Amino acid sequence: MRVLITGGAGFLGRRVLSALLAQGKLMDSDNNEREISRICVADVAGPPQALPDDPRLETVYGDFSEPGAARRLLRDDTGVVFHLAAIVSGQAEQEFDLGMRINLDGTRGLLDACRELSQPPRFVFSSSVAVYGGDMPPVIQDTTPPVPQTSYGAQKAGSELLVSDYSRKGFVDGRSLRLPTIIVRPGKPNAAASSFASSVLREPLQGEDVVCPVAAETGVWALSPRRVVDCFVRAARLPASAWGKNRTLMLPGLTVTVAEMLEALRAVGGDAVAARVRFEPDPFIEQIVYGWPTRFDPRRALDMGFAADNSMTEIIEAFVEDDLGGLIAS
Amino acid sequence: MRVLITGGAGFLGRRVLSALLAQGKLMDSDNNEREISRICVADVAGPPQALPDDPRLETVYGDFSEPGAARRLLRDDTGVVFHLAAIVSGQAEQEFDLGMRINLDGTRGLLDACRELSQPPRFVFSSSVAVYGGDMPPVIQDTTPPVPQTSYGAQKAGSELLVSDYSRKGFVDGRSLRLPTIIVRPGKPNAAASSFASSVLREPLQGEDVVCPVAAETGVWALSPRRVVDCFVRAARLPASAWGKNRTLMLPGLTVTVAEMLEALRAVGGDAVAARVRFEPDPFIEQIVYGWPTRFDPRRALDMGFAADNSMTEIIEAFVEDDLGGLIAS
Repeated sequence: MRVLITGGAGFLGRRVLSALLAQGKLMDSDNNEREISRICVADVAGPPQALPDDPRLETVYGDFSEPGAARRLLRDDTGVVFHLAAIVSGQAEQEFDLGMRINLDGTRGLLDACRELSQPPRFVFSSSVAVYGGDMPPVIQDTTPPVPQTSYGAQKAGSELLVSDYSRKGFVDGRSLRLPTIIVRPGKPNAAASSFASSVLREPLQGEDVVCPVAAETGVWALSPRRVVDCFVRAARLPASAWGKNRTLMLPGLTVTVAEMLEALRAVGGDAVAARVRFEPDPFIEQIVYGWPTRFDPRRALDMGFAADNSMTEIIEAFVEDDLGGLIAS
Repeated sequence: MRVLITGGAGFLGRRVLSALLAQGKLMDSDNNEREISRICVADVAGPPQALPDDPRLETVYGDFSEPGAARRLLRDDTGVVFHLAAIVSGQAEQEFDLGMRINLDGTRGLLDACRELSQPPRFVFSSSVAVYGGDMPPVIQDTTPPVPQTSYGAQKAGSELLVSDYSRKGFVDGRSLRLPTIIVRPGKPNAAASSFASSVLREPLQGEDVVCPVAAETGVWALSPRRVVDCFVRAARLPASAWGKNRTLMLPGLTVTVAEMLEALRAVGGDAVAARVRFEPDPFIEQIVYGWPTRFDPRRALDMGFAADNSMTEIIEAFVEDDLGGLIAS
């Protein structure tokens, strides 16, 4: 069985790739465990770091939303698709048409291409809690309706509807995961409005000063890269029956404020590290981030066996271990 | 100011047209009341009955989802768009690609065309309670999330997201109305799964026998053509501020079972009329209709001044008056 990961050169895609290479097996849409013979990593460009040297790996770089491109990413033995490719929130807000093309039309093009396969593949879609917005309850429930207040959120919510309906029609066996803010992302800041949530930890741990564009009391609904990869793999392994009539799932996470993040940073890295964060409000970021919910009751995901991190300290320690080789620039 | 009605040759479109011609004025997107100088009725084909003879009326027949067609329906003085054109539920389920093209791409094409106008028009979109489905609460609330179980419902929910985001971006001043089942529709049965809800009243009142494809205890969330036209006009008149961050509204209605509909039919038309209904289950219709919710708490719409009919009898009497010239074939 072949597996496709769109956005596979991104930091989450690379981790999903590593997890799948290590496990070597995954469920097909009949829920039979099958040997993974090939994994195709598709992305707009190659990764900043080399991908693992593995004979099962193939790579395709280019815009998957171009006509015919999605179909070329698939082969008849493609049994599972992880669709992670996206234009991030800040950029989708500033470049509306680009966001629509990649985040909405791109998902639809990929679903349409899957529909042409003789066997409907399992389709794991990376959605976001950015679908929530507007007048929200104090705690987001599984039954809280998405009322997106960003184009990114609207495009993700629209894609979820497509994944669900294409699943109901039997074109794919889909499942959409609403991701919390993933911290700590390695690498550089990006155009996501949530970029600060990684930066305020990542840069100080590597000896760099950083500006936090939101207030210390700003809450974030957070999940670590380790845990979200577990969630992706679990989502791919669960049978269609586990999803019932609702193919969309809000993932678990931890509610942490920036202040609590910095407290954990101090606990892990010491005072000098924590002192590298300076506050300087950015109204564009604030306007997006303050509309995001921070408290959730992810009962359905917990019942389905998905799990969050145990603490903010654990999240930072995992980052130091996985991405900094255990070294903190103290 | 010019007004566009897509699906304007349909029975609801014609009634919206008549109401607007009679009122002669409507709000523009700055909420200034403006004289209606022109009304453009766009539809795939001409209406079964002649449209009113009015110098303000223009007609465009053809597929509005063809490239460039939506733009040609608009002029720079188009201040309000009523977007009613759609492929109905049963047909959208059986012809998936056609439903996607008209119901989702068509809406998006029209929104994109509106975006090119120098002044964003008000955009009133005809959505449907068919967006609801899956595991629903006993009574649908304004906060119940749409989990569509039909392609029609998914396409309507997806269009709502577009109307909302295009409004937030200032491309249009949109509002989506989730319509109950509209009864009594005049004319012939159509491919809507809800077609029976009009047929079981309309045909007997005109002396024809009719087959009801669902059980007598089947509930319907119903609204009359008179009331829904009031709702469309009200939706167009309310300022953007009345909608806040949520551009989607569940309309009020009446919960009635088929048995109650036939009871009212008997009260209005007598025993001979009511005896013209025969029950013969149709599994395809049942499978769609039984998934639809029938009990709603439309608090927000009531607070905003939208109103339902007072009784099933009133609905039937309005049909006899408006569409049968007061004559019942007893």
